[in-house]
Amino acid sequence: MAEGTRKFWGWGVVESDLTAEETGQLAKVLSSRFGGAELTPRPAPRVEDLDLRAPRVKPPSALAEICSDDPEERAGHSLGKGFRDVVRAFRRDYGNPVDWVAYPRDEGQIAALLDWCGSEQIAAIPYGGGSSVVGGVEPNVGDRYKGAVSIDLQHLNRLLELDRTSRAAHFEAGIYGPALEAHLRPHKLTLRHFPQSFEFSTLGGWIATRSGGHFATLYTHIDDFVESLRVVTPAGTQESRRLPGSGAGPSPDRMFIGSEGALGIITAAWVRLQDRPTFRAGGTVHFADFLSAAEAVRALSQSGLYPANCRILDPVEAANNGVGSGKEAVMVLGFESADHPVDAWMARALECTADHGGTQAQPPGEGPAHKSGTAGAWRDAFLRMPYVRDAMVSMGMVTDTFETAITWERFPAFHAAVMEATEKAVREICGAGTVSCRFTHAYPDGPAPYYSIIAPGKVESQLEQWDEIKQAASDVLIAQGGTITHHHAVGRDHRPWYDRQHAAGFLVGLRAVKHAFDPAGIMNPGVLVDP
Amino acid sequence: MAEGTRKFWGWGVVESDLTAEETGQLAKVLSSRFGGAELTPRPAPRVEDLDLRAPRVKPPSALAEICSDDPEERAGHSLGKGFRDVVRAFRRDYGNPVDWVAYPRDEGQIAALLDWCGSEQIAAIPYGGGSSVVGGVEPNVGDRYKGAVSIDLQHLNRLLELDRTSRAAHFEAGIYGPALEAHLRPHKLTLRHFPQSFEFSTLGGWIATRSGGHFATLYTHIDDFVESLRVVTPAGTQESRRLPGSGAGPSPDRMFIGSEGALGIITAAWVRLQDRPTFRAGGTVHFADFLSAAEAVRALSQSGLYPANCRILDPVEAANNGVGSGKEAVMVLGFESADHPVDAWMARALECTADHGGTQAQPPGEGPAHKSGTAGAWRDAFLRMPYVRDAMVSMGMVTDTFETAITWERFPAFHAAVMEATEKAVREICGAGTVSCRFTHAYPDGPAPYYSIIAPGKVESQLEQWDEIKQAASDVLIAQGGTITHHHAVGRDHRPWYDRQHAAGFLVGLRAVKHAFDPAGIMNPGVLVDP
Repeated sequence: MAEGTRKFWGWGVVESDLTAEETGQLAKVLSSRFGGAELTPRPAPRVEDLDLRAPRVKPPSALAEICSDDPEERAGHSLGKGFRDVVRAFRRDYGNPVDWVAYPRDEGQIAALLDWCGSEQIAAIPYGGGSSVVGGVEPNVGDRYKGAVSIDLQHLNRLLELDRTSRAAHFEAGIYGPALEAHLRPHKLTLRHFPQSFEFSTLGGWIATRSGGHFATLYTHIDDFVESLRVVTPAGTQESRRLPGSGAGPSPDRMFIGSEGALGIITAAWVRLQDRPTFRAGGTVHFADFLSAAEAVRALSQSGLYPANCRILDPVEAANNGVGSGKEAVMVLGFESADHPVDAWMARALECTADHGGTQAQPPGEGPAHKSGTAGAWRDAFLRMPYVRDAMVSMGMVTDTFETAITWERFPAFHAAVMEATEKAVREICGAGTVSCRFTHAYPDGPAPYYSIIAPGKVESQLEQWDEIKQAASDVLIAQGGTITHHHAVGRDHRPWYDRQHAAGFLVGLRAVKHAFDPAGIMNPGVLVDP
Repeated sequence: MAEGTRKFWGWGVVESDLTAEETGQLAKVLSSRFGGAELTPRPAPRVEDLDLRAPRVKPPSALAEICSDDPEERAGHSLGKGFRDVVRAFRRDYGNPVDWVAYPRDEGQIAALLDWCGSEQIAAIPYGGGSSVVGGVEPNVGDRYKGAVSIDLQHLNRLLELDRTSRAAHFEAGIYGPALEAHLRPHKLTLRHFPQSFEFSTLGGWIATRSGGHFATLYTHIDDFVESLRVVTPAGTQESRRLPGSGAGPSPDRMFIGSEGALGIITAAWVRLQDRPTFRAGGTVHFADFLSAAEAVRALSQSGLYPANCRILDPVEAANNGVGSGKEAVMVLGFESADHPVDAWMARALECTADHGGTQAQPPGEGPAHKSGTAGAWRDAFLRMPYVRDAMVSMGMVTDTFETAITWERFPAFHAAVMEATEKAVREICGAGTVSCRFTHAYPDGPAPYYSIIAPGKVESQLEQWDEIKQAASDVLIAQGGTITHHHAVGRDHRPWYDRQHAAGFLVGLRAVKHAFDPAGIMNPGVLVDP
């Protein structure tokens, strides 16, 4: 993970938080945008503020040395990093903490932990970087369990083997993004998977939640980078064969990719790598409106050019992120290659955008274009956003994101319905606020729209206000044919809509798999399927 | 399917079979290549030759009109189209025929058929085009079943909906390749999935067996083209949501892709399409040896250029297919696009091949390069091969193919071991013969090698000779870390090695899914997992 002191109650490290001055400035901007009421940042929670329930269970002596009941560690592992989590942290609401945090050092200790949990009916909650924004790591497991243990994989952080020829590496699953890339950099290789959580999330977490990377086309989800998996389940340990492709029955890996800890704990994976790009071209293109920009993305995603970036931001989203004037939609366009100059690619892509009314706001530059100019401003804002979010929560704002995917022909009506329902909810519940949209990923058959909400809330009902808006947004996503999540995962927060999204028959099959691997029903209960 | 009279006993249609003159010429060539013994083609089996066991079960009256006990139809549905099948056909060995062939016209009839089979403990064997080469459609199901019914999906052949904007189409699963493409052609769209069986296989069959298409990189398996699936299982009907991408738990579609009829019957699918290519560049590149050619394929597959074709044939394989002198390895290289000229792509690819000692044997041409010159000769031979195979079987040859995938760094040793073990088996069992190799598909992390065997056999022990060779080849694939199949599927023939390839734990999970969807264990028993 990145250097610094991890915040137990919110995103990232203390050292990167907004300064008091920055927070004050943010409060002024937001106040003037939303009606003028004064916004007062509250102090961040301190561990001393909390009065955690004593652990309800006790680890067996053989496991005692890897289990901690330190209050800060327990608090940090009891909530994720979503809006709901940070609000509860500001409320000092840690009423349902994990009883222990376990730090296994090998698979034997993981198996022993699962044995203990199984024999005493304790919920076992796998924990990578803890960056879930969907209630994926909190022990909201019901009364059926005598306790809950968070199993933190941070010590399983080794590079086990590197295969330069096949461009693949075997990592333990608890390795954080920056450490993983640091191992690869000397070999001029990269996994090239950069979710927004990159600094504070792990390989195993990415695989368990089907995370989406920074790049917009072709290789988006982590799914495609998995060459083989090793998983410890309560029923035993299994490993798939390392293969570039196979047609031998349903994919074993796909059974565990996206299983969110409900089947077992991913302990290691062979992942496919890429050469580090050395050729780049990129720029920013402006469009009069979001739907024209969307049409340009459709053309690009169907062109076979495979841009590394072809994200679009609607006018509000662009302005919120410090790019654009607030009047035009902005596309961040870029190509990268380790093999060849990408000028021919970029030239054709700009023809496509021009065909749809795009005007080039920034010429394709030399070097890493996505780190400079408008595109660079957007990227910096992107990585900074979770810290800004924490500050906004501190002053009572209601702000979060939700994301989905839909086919192209349904997109315009879908988007209109989502905007209408969500803006209506924001207006009725908060009185004011903005709903904006960007595309995070684009497929030949449809985009992955990502919506951001910023609204003035009330400190005393901040959580309940959000829950109402989230309900309205999720309802419209599902009613209009989208997915409840493109890359944020299901967790506990999305369960009601996940259950509506999938065929009942499929869920019966998934439950059968769950029973086979987790007969006692201890693995991350409440996530995906009930035991 | 293609025009003509389907052969019940072998590949394709009667009208496309080799003429007597062509067969005689083939016999002479093979005789002179393998020791000079005269090769005498046997006459093809006729339905009158067969004495099929009477049906052991009787369909209920409501299903009688869609069930046939016509001997030719029963014979045609009782064996697949692999070497073992054709040999048994020449032996008139139809000792284990399906009792009935059912031709349902809708999902209601499929569900009724499964109900009947479930209530009377009859094996239900889904049948698309029947092109299995791995024992996937034959009723070798053991004594546990009172009968066996082949469920032929040919009447579920409609285009249900076309979405030009998203480039996707909703087809019933029983549609054959040519009919599917005929629906798309007027819209300038294509599925662009051309397995060797294309003319005589169906969309549902491709999905059920994870078939591999004609194109070499990026989009190889049908898996990536599936947008959503509809499946009738004995436990009910389910349909996944149509989405360009999703992160909502493990993929529902991936549970059924590759399930080979063991979980249920795929009745419809939304598939992702592409615009029909209009820009092409292609050519043939020669290499001094196969491993140099393989290194060039590795460079191309890791370049991000995504050639439509970058197949290589070893010297023997090239000569057998009428391309090359038998001394050099041959690469068939091609790019296609519907969006942009591909000259920049082709130019860079030729640099890559030159870096690995490749010499351009044929300049990149205008128009559909893969249909002309050396590349064209190879393609024609490729499509003609199954007919040639039938003729070779008729004269007692032992000839078949097997295929796999392996990572690049293991490929040289893997290939050496596979060649050594297989050549040894061929030599010991047949006294002479050739083993050759091509790559059918290439991934950034490894190739899919495809091996062909041609050896003089003995009519009276042709099957047993092949079984011994197949055993040796399959053993070495699994021992050396490969997959038992990259795109031919598992069926019944590959079961012993499939069971060794996969972790026992995964198979327990798959069996749990099978129990959930097929509690009576009637779906294609013996394939993938036992009931």
